[in-house]
Amino acid sequence: MVNYPNGRKANPASKQSGKINTAYRGMSLEEDINLANQFYLSSNLAVIHKKPTPIQIVKVDYPKRAAAKIVEGYFQRRSTTDYNGVYKGRYIDFEAKETQKDAFPFTNIHPHQIEHLRQIIEHGGIGFIIIAFTRYDEVYLVDGSYMIDKYLNSPIKHITYQEITEKGFLITQGYQPRLDYLKAVEAIYMEV
Amino acid sequence: MVNYPNGRKANPASKQSGKINTAYRGMSLEEDINLANQFYLSSNLAVIHKKPTPIQIVKVDYPKRAAAKIVEGYFQRRSTTDYNGVYKGRYIDFEAKETQKDAFPFTNIHPHQIEHLRQIIEHGGIGFIIIAFTRYDEVYLVDGSYMIDKYLNSPIKHITYQEITEKGFLITQGYQPRLDYLKAVEAIYMEV
Repeated sequence: MVNYPNGRKANPASKQSGKINTAYRGMSLEEDINLANQFYLSSNLAVIHKKPTPIQIVKVDYPKRAAAKIVEGYFQRRSTTDYNGVYKGRYIDFEAKETQKDAFPFTNIHPHQIEHLRQIIEHGGIGFIIIAFTRYDEVYLVDGSYMIDKYLNSPIKHITYQEITEKGFLITQGYQPRLDYLKAVEAIYMEV
Repeated sequence: MVNYPNGRKANPASKQSGKINTAYRGMSLEEDINLANQFYLSSNLAVIHKKPTPIQIVKVDYPKRAAAKIVEGYFQRRSTTDYNGVYKGRYIDFEAKETQKDAFPFTNIHPHQIEHLRQIIEHGGIGFIIIAFTRYDEVYLVDGSYMIDKYLNSPIKHITYQEITEKGFLITQGYQPRLDYLKAVEAIYMEV
């Protein structure tokens, strides 16, 4: 039986039944996306990385014979998205969010990030949001243009789970990678 | 007379003479590229950002009624490049380096970054290095494939300034933006 590099057990039930497993049992969405990105890179499918967390550095000590040490720093709000890269020559850019609610609240995403996605799409890039509904153990890819339209024009400040099941694209979960979001990208944006 | 947003004086001589000014008088290459990126974004030409510096966070304090404070952190080596984004639907990825020498030493670029550029190009992205020769006040765009080939195969562990003047693309310097590297990208990669 194949286990994950991080030692997590794979789910044998879904394999044996032969059905596609869509239940979201990931340890964390970020971890699953990072593992998928590692898999895509090592399988030579795509080059997608998480951007480092922006830190405002206030004070650095330079001890003798040791590495520079940051002794005062603060987390900064990200003005763009978490992930970007290249797949089949296309620019890919997305944000990943988890919610325990029955809806995706717009407070989960910052106006700067919506504006960033808008710019990306305007310049021919592929922009989207990956949303994990932990309550339903499901993960969806939601197209950026759709999200932007809702964010800017909807009188209700969230998108319901029901709506995302209809308008989003359910990401299948399996072995390797556990969360194969590139398959959704391929289906939505590549098959013309 | 138009001054730079950061208060730097523009160079009137090059304007009056009507000649294209290629002398590199930037305060710093990074600053000039950041200003160019701001200009490209506000002019709706491209969406290119500098990635945040990767920081290894070791200890964080959570003071009451105040933002989380990083009290121990270290700079990490970047495994990818400094900049990426999208231009006319194409994925753009590059590293920027300054040298005071008469050559570009390969010690200025890390093997991980060369490997990253190789992957980018393999997946249809545009990858390059921008090199500022402070001695000559000139900035060149050097194609990623060319750099990778030299890095991996050349017995000499640098590329001479002379060679880069022949194989690189001289970036013109002007008003707005001061360092218009996208013009070089357009000329090299877009005009088919």
